[in-house]
Amino acid sequence: MTRPLRVAMIGYGFMGSAHSVGWRQAPRMFDLPAGVEMAVIVGRNVGAVAEAADTWGWAESATDWREVIARDDIDIVDVVTPGDSHAEIAIAALEAGKHVLCEKPLANSVAEAEAMADAAARAAERGQVAMVGFTYRRVPAVTHLRDMIAQGAIGRVQQVRAAYRQDWLVDPEGPLTWRLTKETAGSGALGDIGAHIVDMTQFVTGQNVEAVSGTIETIVKRRPLLGERVGLLGTATEEYGDVTVDDAALFTGRLSDGALVSFEATRFATGRKNALTLEVSGDKGALRFDLEDLNALQYYDRTAPADRQGFTKILVTDADHPYVSAWWPAGHMLGYEHGFSHQVVDLVTGIATGTAPHPTFAEGLNVQRVLDAVERSSANDSAWTRATAPVPAS
Amino acid sequence: MTRPLRVAMIGYGFMGSAHSVGWRQAPRMFDLPAGVEMAVIVGRNVGAVAEAADTWGWAESATDWREVIARDDIDIVDVVTPGDSHAEIAIAALEAGKHVLCEKPLANSVAEAEAMADAAARAAERGQVAMVGFTYRRVPAVTHLRDMIAQGAIGRVQQVRAAYRQDWLVDPEGPLTWRLTKETAGSGALGDIGAHIVDMTQFVTGQNVEAVSGTIETIVKRRPLLGERVGLLGTATEEYGDVTVDDAALFTGRLSDGALVSFEATRFATGRKNALTLEVSGDKGALRFDLEDLNALQYYDRTAPADRQGFTKILVTDADHPYVSAWWPAGHMLGYEHGFSHQVVDLVTGIATGTAPHPTFAEGLNVQRVLDAVERSSANDSAWTRATAPVPAS
Amino acid sequence: MTRPLRVAMIGYGFMGSAHSVGWRQAPRMFDLPAGVEMAVIVGRNVGAVAEAADTWGWAESATDWREVIARDDIDIVDVVTPGDSHAEIAIAALEAGKHVLCEKPLANSVAEAEAMADAAARAAERGQVAMVGFTYRRVPAVTHLRDMIAQGAIGRVQQVRAAYRQDWLVDPEGPLTWRLTKETAGSGALGDIGAHIVDMTQFVTGQNVEAVSGTIETIVKRRPLLGERVGLLGTATEEYGDVTVDDAALFTGRLSDGALVSFEATRFATGRKNALTLEVSGDKGALRFDLEDLNALQYYDRTAPADRQGFTKILVTDADHPYVSAWWPAGHMLGYEHGFSHQVVDLVTGIATGTAPHPTFAEGLNVQRVLDAVERSSANDSAWTRATAPVPAS
Amino acid sequence: MTRPLRVAMIGYGFMGSAHSVGWRQAPRMFDLPAGVEMAVIVGRNVGAVAEAADTWGWAESATDWREVIARDDIDIVDVVTPGDSHAEIAIAALEAGKHVLCEKPLANSVAEAEAMADAAARAAERGQVAMVGFTYRRVPAVTHLRDMIAQGAIGRVQQVRAAYRQDWLVDPEGPLTWRLTKETAGSGALGDIGAHIVDMTQFVTGQNVEAVSGTIETIVKRRPLLGERVGLLGTATEEYGDVTVDDAALFTGRLSDGALVSFEATRFATGRKNALTLEVSGDKGALRFDLEDLNALQYYDRTAPADRQGFTKILVTDADHPYVSAWWPAGHMLGYEHGFSHQVVDLVTGIATGTAPHPTFAEGLNVQRVLDAVERSSANDSAWTRATAPVPAS
Repeated sequence: MTRPLRVAMIGYGFMGSAHSVGWRQAPRMFDLPAGVEMAVIVGRNVGAVAEAADTWGWAESATDWREVIARDDIDIVDVVTPGDSHAEIAIAALEAGKHVLCEKPLANSVAEAEAMADAAARAAERGQVAMVGFTYRRVPAVTHLRDMIAQGAIGRVQQVRAAYRQDWLVDPEGPLTWRLTKETAGSGALGDIGAHIVDMTQFVTGQNVEAVSGTIETIVKRRPLLGERVGLLGTATEEYGDVTVDDAALFTGRLSDGALVSFEATRFATGRKNALTLEVSGDKGALRFDLEDLNALQYYDRTAPADRQGFTKILVTDADHPYVSAWWPAGHMLGYEHGFSHQVVDLVTGIATGTAPHPTFAEGLNVQRVLDAVERSSANDSAWTRATAPVPAS
Repeated sequence: MTRPLRVAMIGYGFMGSAHSVGWRQAPRMFDLPAGVEMAVIVGRNVGAVAEAADTWGWAESATDWREVIARDDIDIVDVVTPGDSHAEIAIAALEAGKHVLCEKPLANSVAEAEAMADAAARAAERGQVAMVGFTYRRVPAVTHLRDMIAQGAIGRVQQVRAAYRQDWLVDPEGPLTWRLTKETAGSGALGDIGAHIVDMTQFVTGQNVEAVSGTIETIVKRRPLLGERVGLLGTATEEYGDVTVDDAALFTGRLSDGALVSFEATRFATGRKNALTLEVSGDKGALRFDLEDLNALQYYDRTAPADRQGFTKILVTDADHPYVSAWWPAGHMLGYEHGFSHQVVDLVTGIATGTAPHPTFAEGLNVQRVLDAVERSSANDSAWTRATAPVPAS
Repeated sequence: MTRPLRVAMIGYGFMGSAHSVGWRQAPRMFDLPAGVEMAVIVGRNVGAVAEAADTWGWAESATDWREVIARDDIDIVDVVTPGDSHAEIAIAALEAGKHVLCEKPLANSVAEAEAMADAAARAAERGQVAMVGFTYRRVPAVTHLRDMIAQGAIGRVQQVRAAYRQDWLVDPEGPLTWRLTKETAGSGALGDIGAHIVDMTQFVTGQNVEAVSGTIETIVKRRPLLGERVGLLGTATEEYGDVTVDDAALFTGRLSDGALVSFEATRFATGRKNALTLEVSGDKGALRFDLEDLNALQYYDRTAPADRQGFTKILVTDADHPYVSAWWPAGHMLGYEHGFSHQVVDLVTGIATGTAPHPTFAEGLNVQRVLDAVERSSANDSAWTRATAPVPAS
Repeated sequence: MTRPLRVAMIGYGFMGSAHSVGWRQAPRMFDLPAGVEMAVIVGRNVGAVAEAADTWGWAESATDWREVIARDDIDIVDVVTPGDSHAEIAIAALEAGKHVLCEKPLANSVAEAEAMADAAARAAERGQVAMVGFTYRRVPAVTHLRDMIAQGAIGRVQQVRAAYRQDWLVDPEGPLTWRLTKETAGSGALGDIGAHIVDMTQFVTGQNVEAVSGTIETIVKRRPLLGERVGLLGTATEEYGDVTVDDAALFTGRLSDGALVSFEATRFATGRKNALTLEVSGDKGALRFDLEDLNALQYYDRTAPADRQGFTKILVTDADHPYVSAWWPAGHMLGYEHGFSHQVVDLVTGIATGTAPHPTFAEGLNVQRVLDAVERSSANDSAWTRATAPVPAS
């Protein structure tokens, strides 16, 4: 390729920092099929976005995303705004002929996600790529887990457990931040972290969650109003208000091939900071993953000699594991942000080779449909509810 | 006490062996308030029961349990038969004026369990004791976990996770043993191992599971008929038959004080041999237990200095931990069967002191009602279903 | 066999309790080739030994061990006295024609151990059995580890690490008990727990430690004199005295085939209660064991596919693992005292079949020679020192 | 500061890549007191170094390091060449008035290291900074461990264990690469990974290793000559040659305050990829670290209530842990290369504030003296040997 791909990133919160690391590191650590330039970062506050550009190394800053996506010199639009603006920006960018990377969750509603998937399908016909930012797929251990299932390492999937446990809401006197109000946050634990475990389950099994029965719950229903914000939390005042999003979601899903999955997404698992855990049980073996031990994979092989069976802790840091050879020697650990570099690698490779990298917008839509079905089930006394019309994974 | 308590054990399967260890070891390792004699073991097959008496150290054997419970020289009747005969034997023994220890689950139906709890209540007025054999309560780490919650170590319980995972049915070509047929087994994973996690949850929180929403599932619906039995499994023939009990049960429960509990009981968790795990999240901390690491407890203290918080692995083997001082020095591990000795200790102490040891038949009935509600919920599209009229814990 | 083997146990401390469990449980849980009777327990204090007989289930008690070993109705003498009387009693018992089980360490000096090994060799010609009580060899995971090495699972042994870490002396103000004085205790960490790791290393590798270089250390050199004894420790007075045994021993050994072993025995590993750990590195794999997780074994197989290698945690609780089939189903844990039952099983089997069970007195002598060489090396500026004339392992 | 600090990096192997990440990331993730520019990278091969400049983002490349350190526009010289050229380059750079960061080990001999420490001392008087690249000090968990010891969390240090275990030489038929020959590699496991554990022990305890007794060993003494190089290893030919560096070093050290340390550095710990482990036992508690689980720290507090003591696994990922607030929210893991960013942070802060960041060249020299004493002890039958004249830590 003669000209490097030029990227515009819309948004600059925590995810903006993580995406910036990906854009900065991937071209230096991997042998990419195309160059990459961090061209423009876009935000509403002119001073803040200029500072972000300077800090993170974007060549320019801008305040009007519509102007930026109209520019001819931009190839990729990376959307890291809050979920309520994903649809508008991503669709506009696709219609402007850009490749799009959109942070998860794809949207705040199924209707929006459907419109985005439609736009992506039309854009694909023009050779454009649209990808959702479920970066945990690209933790090397998760990719390896998926590959091992595909290779038959555990046989037929018979049961799955997926949980995402955090604890930052455990204190019932913690204040009512914007994340705890429906209007501002869109959703609670279900949409934020539940989305990850639904996506990961579908990714590693290659199956869709077709129906669910579940309960979403607001564990602490009233909290003191927020005084001053500090990090994710803040100080409390003496007045109280209603929490209007869920704190936890417990649901059971059924996969295309019939296996049951137990899901838990919670912000009330005291002591669990970022515990995304997955366990896939097959008739020939099992695989387990824990994001708090993200360089490792646990593998049980039922075909091994009976007196030597057990869970093998595979350290996924060898050169023959996915993505690892670009980094360090065996036993040298990777961390949270490496997935953002791997995402850039696969996106750029997809663009350069003309093949759509996963997860597509259709896959993002499938996740949205499952989350929506959970909400409907919960509102309907936990009755089993179909995730309408899942779209083939691509 | 002048005369030792004389015990008759009805039944002699695997549980007979485990109970025998309890009766044999407890008086030698603990300073009991009353002597104990292993007087009679009762079984239908005259030769087999005589051999069991000889092997396990019972003074006599007999084949007619009605005759045995009519004897004046018997003080305690220990019921370790299959669940379908618990009600008849235990009620008869109580009416004959005996103290009764009945293996879990209390019965195969709520109706039977109600009759047993009624009989126990009447017997209690006459000074008799009736106890259910949920021995996992008496793993020192579990007792300590319960005590710590009662002491306020984790504050208010906000969420609970309880699972019991085994894998002995993972092979879809494993044969159709008697355990997989409703008529012979009564129930599957729900009644067998689900009972343990419902009881343990109620025990450690001091609350009842008041309602449930759940799904019970037969993962492998047809299996080859059994040729020759080998251990829990056996050889397969070429004909197939229907599995009529559940392989797995996934359900959500709500405790008296409102907290949600996620439950999983399964025989399809490949690689998990006997993985009963419990995690109780409170607003001040959390406690975790894993039966495959049964000498330990994990404790998270949210009131510790922020930069020193984490899960503490407490080795529950010190002299100041429950039951431990009678055994070995710190760091010397206990195993599965020690709970059966502790059960004898508490039963004999209860009889000698005239105080009812837990779990009472009323508590056993409460478990049965929860299991029954799970079955009804599952049959009713997983709708939330109340466990009717829980009985106060003692 | 027509008549059961009748046992006399000399001594009744903590080890007396543990050995009693072995004698009590083994015949009831295992199908032994000969019956066993707990005939006599011997101690100096007439009241205390009578109480011990009653508590632990010995038919008689006695105060004169010489009279007891002279009796015709005694077949096995089990020596659980302090180490300074092992030689006298064991040799007398062997000369009286008895089979002998002697608790570890075999003796307090190489000279005594040599005399005992000689007596055992002469007795062996008369068909008698002499065995040393290194029960950790009979933790199923340790036996399995040894078997796997013998089967070639890890190839050629290239390096070994063995440590035994406790922490009961960590407090520098803990009192000067009899265990901390040379005259009363004989030795410190080296002789007490160092003996275990030397024996286990020789057992699992099938090789002798032929030379050592090491340092033994008294970390806290003066302690308050003991007021009142409480468990292993006690209350302190205001006067101080000298600690005259070692608190820790750090040494390197060389095995017969040339591999180096690092040894650590310490009572100052804060937080480690009973942490005997072993790691054997071979050119085809590795095996690890930790007594604080005694039902498990860690196995690394270098011949597995590169991207699936890792340490496999084998739960050594399956029916096809050593000793396990006599106990409980897979996943049901064993504890500390089970090794004492397994010791009885192997001793009785050895007597019944006329084959010497390991560890022989010659093996116990080998351990003693290694410990002696460590003391001599430490006194000689840690110079490499040969363990004189190791005796073939059997 | 008006002008950013301009960096020249000499060398471009694996360490060049890791250092480049540090220079690239630190200014973007941390709020540094001075700007940083990646000005020049220097290597002998003109094409290769130009490619490295392009890949890693250095503005220029050059082939003559003497010319580069003579330039006025260079402020910092970062030395990542093999150890045999450290002294020459670092001293020249210091004499040219530059701040110097020198990769570990400081030098290949004590004499060189002494000359470097002298040069650094003279340069310090002129306001220059000289720092050694022991980056493992800056894993947040290691820094936190050091801080906790300094805060008295474990009381007086009574014993230490430090090991660095790798396994890339386990195969006795692996080829004789340049790393296994004294002339090319300088040293084996002792100098390469032993250096890390000596430094880390001195760092966290704040004490020097004053004397040692040890053994260094070449486990596989002859290996096939190298055919083609592949990664750390390569293909074997049919001829054999002598391995002339050590494969493993086992030594005991004594700290300034008297505590013993056991050290192990080995490339033969089958299955251990990069297992640097440290355990510090004090009279009030203990702390443990494992580089294969680098986001965690294990802390035992002997002053906690007796029935709640245990090792607490502190996830060192909270904003109040060292370095962490610049990265991600709690529970989001860091990896191997983050230490290189933290090194840049502390170096730049040291330069900007005029305070010498640790480890100084004097500290690097102390490590060298300990390694040298180990070699001399090993050559002298493991006799205790003093590390001559340790230099105060700063």
